[in-house]
Amino acid sequence: MDLDPATLAVAVAQGDRRALARAITLVESAREDHRDRAEALLAALPERETALRLGLSGTPGAGKSTLIEVLGMQLTGQGRRVAVLAVDPSSQRFGGSILGDKTRMERLSREPLAFIRPSPAGGQLGGVARRTREAVRLCEAAGFDLVIVETVGVGQSETMVAEMTDIFAMVLAPHGGDDLQGVKRGVMEAADLILVNKADRDPAAAAHTQGDYAAALRLMRKRPQDPEGFPCVLTVSALTGTGLREAWAAVERLWLWRRDQGHLARRRAEQRLLWFEEEFVQQALARLHRDPRLASTLRAEVEAGRLSPPEAARRALEA
Amino acid sequence: MDLDPATLAVAVAQGDRRALARAITLVESAREDHRDRAEALLAALPERETALRLGLSGTPGAGKSTLIEVLGMQLTGQGRRVAVLAVDPSSQRFGGSILGDKTRMERLSREPLAFIRPSPAGGQLGGVARRTREAVRLCEAAGFDLVIVETVGVGQSETMVAEMTDIFAMVLAPHGGDDLQGVKRGVMEAADLILVNKADRDPAAAAHTQGDYAAALRLMRKRPQDPEGFPCVLTVSALTGTGLREAWAAVERLWLWRRDQGHLARRRAEQRLLWFEEEFVQQALARLHRDPRLASTLRAEVEAGRLSPPEAARRALEA
Repeated sequence: MDLDPATLAVAVAQGDRRALARAITLVESAREDHRDRAEALLAALPERETALRLGLSGTPGAGKSTLIEVLGMQLTGQGRRVAVLAVDPSSQRFGGSILGDKTRMERLSREPLAFIRPSPAGGQLGGVARRTREAVRLCEAAGFDLVIVETVGVGQSETMVAEMTDIFAMVLAPHGGDDLQGVKRGVMEAADLILVNKADRDPAAAAHTQGDYAAALRLMRKRPQDPEGFPCVLTVSALTGTGLREAWAAVERLWLWRRDQGHLARRRAEQRLLWFEEEFVQQALARLHRDPRLASTLRAEVEAGRLSPPEAARRALEA
Repeated sequence: MDLDPATLAVAVAQGDRRALARAITLVESAREDHRDRAEALLAALPERETALRLGLSGTPGAGKSTLIEVLGMQLTGQGRRVAVLAVDPSSQRFGGSILGDKTRMERLSREPLAFIRPSPAGGQLGGVARRTREAVRLCEAAGFDLVIVETVGVGQSETMVAEMTDIFAMVLAPHGGDDLQGVKRGVMEAADLILVNKADRDPAAAAHTQGDYAAALRLMRKRPQDPEGFPCVLTVSALTGTGLREAWAAVERLWLWRRDQGHLARRRAEQRLLWFEEEFVQQALARLHRDPRLASTLRAEVEAGRLSPPEAARRALEA
C-alpha cells in the first residue's frame, strides 16, 4: 500500500495483476487517507471502457462458482482476459453467511489470464456499490476483456449488480416444479439470460424448469434493448460443460447487438448518472463525519432526543 | 389528503385509525408538496415513545402472518392496542414478489384495537426506512402499546427493521436437519428471540431445529443488553396457539429488563443517530434533484462521459 497512486496507475494499466490487487485493496479501504489516494489513482488511470461487463447472480447451490470457473477456463483458453469480482452486500453489522466462504474456482485462480477477487469483509450497501464500480473500472483499465460481477441472489445485491453491468444473467438449479416464488419479479425483469444449471443430473427437470421460466418471461413486456429471442432461458451443465459455449455465444451476440444499436451506450450513460447520485450520497456522508462541530453538537442533541433526526439533518445540510 | 397537517395531527393523537391511515399515506407519498406537509404533521405530533417496538422477520412459508394474527388477537383481547406495519424493501425497479400479496390477517384487521398497514408499492431502501420510521412514530403518537414491524427474511430488510425496533424476533419453520445456511450470521446476531413455528405438525423436527439454533446462539458472544436466558429459541404453533403466551411473556420480560437497565434508552439513542444520517442522505438527494442548474449541467456531463461520477459529485457538493 506504500506505492504512490501515479506509479500504481501505470502498473495497473500495464496489466500487472499484483498491482491490480493492491489497487483494489486501496479502493476498498475505509481509511480516509486511503480514500484520497484511491481517488488520485482512479483519476490517473486511462479511460478504457471496452470490456464486456457481465453481472451474474445465483441462489446458493445453483453452481455459480463452478459455472464461472469452467466458462473462465474456456475463455482464457482462447486468449481472453477474464476478471471475476464478487459482491456480498451483507452489512458490517450483519456479517457474511454463517458458513463462510469455501475456496472457490481453484483452477481459474491459477490461470495467468484470469483475475479473481473475492468479496471484502463487509460494509454498507452504498459503500459496496462504490468500491465494486471502482474495481470494475480498475479491471477495465488493466485490460481485461470480460469483467464478471457475481453475487448471491438475495434481492438487493442483484439490483446493484444489474445496475453496473451490461448484461445480467441468473443461474438457477432445476426446481421440483413447485415454484418460481423464490425469484422476485424485478430480478426476472432485469435478467437477460437465465441459465438452468445441472442439466446433466436430471435433464427432464432442467427442461421443465426452462419451460416454466420461458413462460414467465413471455408474460413480461418486450424491451427495446433486446433483439429477437431475448431474454432467453438456456440449460447448461457446468460439470460436463454442456451448453456453456452456446450460453457464452448468446451473451456475446446480445452485447454486440446492443453495442451496435446504441443501447449499450445509453445503458452505461444511465448507470453513470446512478453512480453520480451514489457518490454524492457517500461524499455527503463523509463530509458530515469529518465536521467536528456537527459531530459534537447535532449528534449530541439527536442522541439525547432533544432534536428530531429530520430536523437535525436539515440543520446539518444548511451548515 | 386534503386535511391540513395540524388537524390531522390532532386526529391521529386522539387515536383515530382513519386519520392514522391517512397520515401514513401522506408520509409514504413521493410528492414534494406532500413531503412538506408530512414534516409539518410529524412536527405537530405529541412526543410519545412508550410503545414496545417489535421487529419480526421470517422466511416465506414460516407462518409469520398467522403468528402475528393470533398473537395480535390475544393481546387486543387483553385490551392492548396493536399496530402492524409491513416492510418490503424491493426497489421500485425490482418490484415485489412474483406471487404478490395474499390477503392476510383477516380477523385481526377487523379488530377495533388493531391497526394493520401493508407494505406500500416500492421505493429505494433509504426511502422505505424513512417512511417506516415515520409510520412507527405515527402509531406511537396514536397511542398504540405495541408496534410490530414485520418483514420477509431477505437480508437487507432485516437489518433495517432491527435498527428501528427494541426487540428483534425471527420466525422459522422446522427444518429437515440439513441447514442453518439460510440464516445469515448477522441476522442471528441481531435476533433476541427465535420462534420455531409449526411445532404442531412435527414436534420432533421442531425440537431438533430449536436445539440446532440454541447451539448456534451459544457460539455467539454474550451481549450486555441480554438478561440471563437471552437470546432464546422457543417452539410455537400459530395454528394451535401453543407457546404463544410464553413467547409474548419472553418479549415483555426482555423489554422491561432492558428498559429498567437503561439498555432501551441507549438503543433508541443509537437508532436516532442512524435515523439522522439516513435523513441527511435523503434530504441531500432531494436538494440535488431540486436544483435545476445542477440537474442540467453536471448530469449532462456525467451522462455524456465527459465528467467522472465521483468528480461530478464533488462539484455538486461544493455548489
